[in-house]
Amino acid sequence: MQVAIIGITGYAGSTLYELLKKHSQVNQINLYGHNLSKPTQLNQINDEFSYDQHLVFPYDENAIIKDNDAVFFATPAGVTSKMAKPFIKAGFPVIDLSGDYRLKDPDEYAKWYQKDSAELSDLQKAQYCLADIDDSEGAKYIANPGCYATAVLLGLAPVVKEDLIDLDSIVIDAKSGLSGAGKSLSDSSHFVMANENLQVYKPHEHKHIPEIVQKLQVWNKNVQNIEFMTTLVPLNKGIMCTMFMKLKSNIEMDKVQHAFDSLYANSKFVHVSMDELPTIKSVVGTNECHVGLSFNSSNNSLMIVSVIDNMIKGAAGQAIQNFNHLFDFEETDGLELMHVLP
Amino acid sequence: MQVAIIGITGYAGSTLYELLKKHSQVNQINLYGHNLSKPTQLNQINDEFSYDQHLVFPYDENAIIKDNDAVFFATPAGVTSKMAKPFIKAGFPVIDLSGDYRLKDPDEYAKWYQKDSAELSDLQKAQYCLADIDDSEGAKYIANPGCYATAVLLGLAPVVKEDLIDLDSIVIDAKSGLSGAGKSLSDSSHFVMANENLQVYKPHEHKHIPEIVQKLQVWNKNVQNIEFMTTLVPLNKGIMCTMFMKLKSNIEMDKVQHAFDSLYANSKFVHVSMDELPTIKSVVGTNECHVGLSFNSSNNSLMIVSVIDNMIKGAAGQAIQNFNHLFDFEETDGLELMHVLP
Amino acid sequence: MQVAIIGITGYAGSTLYELLKKHSQVNQINLYGHNLSKPTQLNQINDEFSYDQHLVFPYDENAIIKDNDAVFFATPAGVTSKMAKPFIKAGFPVIDLSGDYRLKDPDEYAKWYQKDSAELSDLQKAQYCLADIDDSEGAKYIANPGCYATAVLLGLAPVVKEDLIDLDSIVIDAKSGLSGAGKSLSDSSHFVMANENLQVYKPHEHKHIPEIVQKLQVWNKNVQNIEFMTTLVPLNKGIMCTMFMKLKSNIEMDKVQHAFDSLYANSKFVHVSMDELPTIKSVVGTNECHVGLSFNSSNNSLMIVSVIDNMIKGAAGQAIQNFNHLFDFEETDGLELMHVLP
Amino acid sequence: MQVAIIGITGYAGSTLYELLKKHSQVNQINLYGHNLSKPTQLNQINDEFSYDQHLVFPYDENAIIKDNDAVFFATPAGVTSKMAKPFIKAGFPVIDLSGDYRLKDPDEYAKWYQKDSAELSDLQKAQYCLADIDDSEGAKYIANPGCYATAVLLGLAPVVKEDLIDLDSIVIDAKSGLSGAGKSLSDSSHFVMANENLQVYKPHEHKHIPEIVQKLQVWNKNVQNIEFMTTLVPLNKGIMCTMFMKLKSNIEMDKVQHAFDSLYANSKFVHVSMDELPTIKSVVGTNECHVGLSFNSSNNSLMIVSVIDNMIKGAAGQAIQNFNHLFDFEETDGLELMHVLP
Repeated sequence: MQVAIIGITGYAGSTLYELLKKHSQVNQINLYGHNLSKPTQLNQINDEFSYDQHLVFPYDENAIIKDNDAVFFATPAGVTSKMAKPFIKAGFPVIDLSGDYRLKDPDEYAKWYQKDSAELSDLQKAQYCLADIDDSEGAKYIANPGCYATAVLLGLAPVVKEDLIDLDSIVIDAKSGLSGAGKSLSDSSHFVMANENLQVYKPHEHKHIPEIVQKLQVWNKNVQNIEFMTTLVPLNKGIMCTMFMKLKSNIEMDKVQHAFDSLYANSKFVHVSMDELPTIKSVVGTNECHVGLSFNSSNNSLMIVSVIDNMIKGAAGQAIQNFNHLFDFEETDGLELMHVLP
Repeated sequence: MQVAIIGITGYAGSTLYELLKKHSQVNQINLYGHNLSKPTQLNQINDEFSYDQHLVFPYDENAIIKDNDAVFFATPAGVTSKMAKPFIKAGFPVIDLSGDYRLKDPDEYAKWYQKDSAELSDLQKAQYCLADIDDSEGAKYIANPGCYATAVLLGLAPVVKEDLIDLDSIVIDAKSGLSGAGKSLSDSSHFVMANENLQVYKPHEHKHIPEIVQKLQVWNKNVQNIEFMTTLVPLNKGIMCTMFMKLKSNIEMDKVQHAFDSLYANSKFVHVSMDELPTIKSVVGTNECHVGLSFNSSNNSLMIVSVIDNMIKGAAGQAIQNFNHLFDFEETDGLELMHVLP
Repeated sequence: MQVAIIGITGYAGSTLYELLKKHSQVNQINLYGHNLSKPTQLNQINDEFSYDQHLVFPYDENAIIKDNDAVFFATPAGVTSKMAKPFIKAGFPVIDLSGDYRLKDPDEYAKWYQKDSAELSDLQKAQYCLADIDDSEGAKYIANPGCYATAVLLGLAPVVKEDLIDLDSIVIDAKSGLSGAGKSLSDSSHFVMANENLQVYKPHEHKHIPEIVQKLQVWNKNVQNIEFMTTLVPLNKGIMCTMFMKLKSNIEMDKVQHAFDSLYANSKFVHVSMDELPTIKSVVGTNECHVGLSFNSSNNSLMIVSVIDNMIKGAAGQAIQNFNHLFDFEETDGLELMHVLP
Repeated sequence: MQVAIIGITGYAGSTLYELLKKHSQVNQINLYGHNLSKPTQLNQINDEFSYDQHLVFPYDENAIIKDNDAVFFATPAGVTSKMAKPFIKAGFPVIDLSGDYRLKDPDEYAKWYQKDSAELSDLQKAQYCLADIDDSEGAKYIANPGCYATAVLLGLAPVVKEDLIDLDSIVIDAKSGLSGAGKSLSDSSHFVMANENLQVYKPHEHKHIPEIVQKLQVWNKNVQNIEFMTTLVPLNKGIMCTMFMKLKSNIEMDKVQHAFDSLYANSKFVHVSMDELPTIKSVVGTNECHVGLSFNSSNNSLMIVSVIDNMIKGAAGQAIQNFNHLFDFEETDGLELMHVLP
């Protein structure tokens, strides 16, 4: 197979490229830059690849469709929808890592992203695939979930689907390393500001909130909204979501455990522990999501902690997992990764 | 004045000693080690003080009472109560940074600390002084609050005292730098484990929970308990408490603002913002507590974020503030600190 | 006394302002911005001062001279020399933290700074004052040394002055935290790039090289040049200079020790150890320089390690020390700082 | 092939195990603990492997020889030589990651390691294999180089072999992340001590010095000794060696370039740049060594900077590379790694 990556300057595109190199079914990766005017060596546009002279080509939709079997968009929100139309029209397989096709409602998109939405008819063709739960078989246009959304949804799925908790009580305190803030320079990602510091950001305004709520509502129509807050912590990679909620009064913890066990019994990537809480370190470098639970009998509160590598499970790794489902490849192909040691 | 510090090997004792050196009313600081057998130079028992040859003396209660006007205990929980009795009996002024006299109920102490409690009669003599709210005037034995408790209580005081929130809805996600885990070596504070990692610890078992609840109940008898979780983040100093709660249905935000304004109108150290959320960096190195608020009208949730330097406002600085109250010194004496720049 | 600070947005200016607040002889600090068009609150132009509403005034040389007894320039190289002329002409006391008047030779300045030099006659009026060795008494225009230069010169002074080493053998490997790279955003100071990384920069091109050589030559005319390299290390503050050299064949270590002892016998801020090597941590937050030595008898090599807080001893602290000398104040006034604990 | 790993609790053993899992010629990895009394699940003795229930077996030399085709020792210095004898006697293929068989001279070993040396006859059977230069074909007992030694030797090889530099002028300032200090708890690796700090350690006493000198002398008999210093920097992984030396007076840089080009022309893992200096980040996660050069014409000094991942190229990765040579496998088998992004 030949696959295209559009957008190779950001962290998600870089990671995707590195991962796809190990994929047994991919024999060529073609790189395209949406801002390039002529073919350029990769090491000249992305210094993460100091010795890689692979050529990156200017964006050309016809060439991409002609020369590839699938395309990954690793372009920013707002940019992707401007480019994706011909691929949607052609029914060409797309895995889109941006947020442009995740929300079904154009108004919601406009409200949260402060940009023009893709067209409603195209939004309806896109399929939001949380790879460890949803099967993308038959999908044409895959909207790959956001990083926070992935960690939150994998942690909440069992209790929301099985209706075990007071839905109005969900509080999520999410922490992310700085790679989540992207490669663009900003005051909050300046080393001296980010190091030895914690920064709460975008209170009640994070773009991943609507996709989380939209998906929770698919699982349980009584979900109204969630309380979700994000904090930048001084590390490069990793997301931890600490999620608090009240168990419904008649629910026992063995029912909760059963919900997790049955949903993830055959999961290749989601590991759940009822005894230990996971650390960021146990997942960085992998496509895994680790989930731990702690129950507080004194106030009937359940805490669920989920951790992921934001760039792999939260972006490029999940994109490949969705790609594997789409083409019926082995689910773990390209994703048998070594976690970062030490 | 001459003051004694008992316990000079830990971070709290070291910080206390550095701060007291700048206090205008303290002309001599006498150091005592609870494990020393003979006078020893400070730089030999604590390598944070490489060029300080000040002598540290073996613990001797009679000498301490005779040679000093007040004593600070910077000894561990469980150790302090074994040493404090003669001071209590003598009515000698004590500021105790340990947790041994914070809880009024010996059984609660035994349950949370897993150690023998001080005697009930002594517990009753001790006064828990949250320095920015409580006046220690007239106190003899001051139980200085815990670091997390300080950050939580200063953030919650206005809304709990004024009964503005649904008390059962309080959820606290607390993050602390590694100095909070102390100077003792452990796997979780080994650099390679703590760096590039987040570690949730002691779920639902943190010792500061009962002192928080005890104090909240003083302010509002309807408080039952709280949901409180702690995460170690890879920085040296600082605590951030992100606190979530539901506003009572008939309460508007201007009432919340008014509660903060009136409680902290004359505060030297607590600064509140309704517009911006505070960062750890803005308080590290100082005795300040910064508090920020964000209201989510879509679900009537209020988020309160409070940040402190865990070693200063959360320990040694607050101890000096209490000491200043006790002896009717200027409240800011010894505490006009430069925040760490950059 | 009233003093002016010109330039309050950078790290050096901020630190200077915080330090001067504690100076016993300074009763007013007037802030001026070289780019401001109208008086503006400090917290609006520098978010390190979230609750400081002190006004910053537009630059106006006549007003500054009229309203102040001395002025500190914390403006960038290239900018300072454009503003300093009237102060030099008026013989007004200036302490200049920039590099504009450090080099005596305009051509050297132009070569290393790639900017136009100040006029030769003005360069000659300026006095380069390494505060722990040079006395600025009688100076009018003080050129405050660079951060690396300070750490290097304090470590090398005894052996270069006393001619104890092979001058051609000096190799300096200097490491600096990211605050040394300033507040301007850049790829190399982006958190994700700087964290978990080491970056050698400006090989053989660092601006501090010529001022180091110029000063060494004052001490020992046989100095030709030095080998000096800088590496960015992932910490906020602090410089460590590891300096390697060969002892002259007839020199014993007791002579080296004697040279250090006699030069720094009465030093308030320079501490030397023949037994232990200093760490960054022991000086951060202070105006101290710690120096440690290690001799390798197998190849007659001497290693000297010096550490400073780059913003205090390497900039604002030394500036105040020079200011104290200039006005014959107590040398330690404003500089009795607490080192950062823990 | 079946291979054994002895020692699975340390960082090197863990990394080796993770890497060997991806090796195409290894179909079973048998783990042995030198302190175990009964078979134990891996996740119970090493919490880096939270979900790995692979059994670790007690050390039993006969079983190991019988059940495996090769053995990797990831045991500490001093321990390995106590266990290796029967393997040497049997001529069984060993790749030893410890330092026990690197030095040819038992007295040197005793002096630097402060432990009893292996027997001279066994030392002579061992072969020190710097995998990017030495071919281990035919070796039986491979002494895998130390991490610092690897970075230093790969950087110096071209100029020492070709005799291009003043051998007495070599000065090496080596910086290492904390994983280099191992998994054992110590004050210097306590997070609060190591973070925001730089610590020079073991001045002139580092165990890797003699193996560096021994190997340099193989390449150029005029080498006497080196000046080598190590500093702990606050990052988890990676080594940077900054090496200073004088070019011989008649040598031009094109000759230096030619020496690097010819030695590494066909190297799979060593990349050299004459224009750019490498960063730690470009190699962490890989088996690569990046080398950069900078020449200072004003004093005829050459600086060579080399960077490696201390656990991969500096330990487990190089061990596998040596293993590949030994068995004539593809050199890159098991080592086609993704560098850590971002």
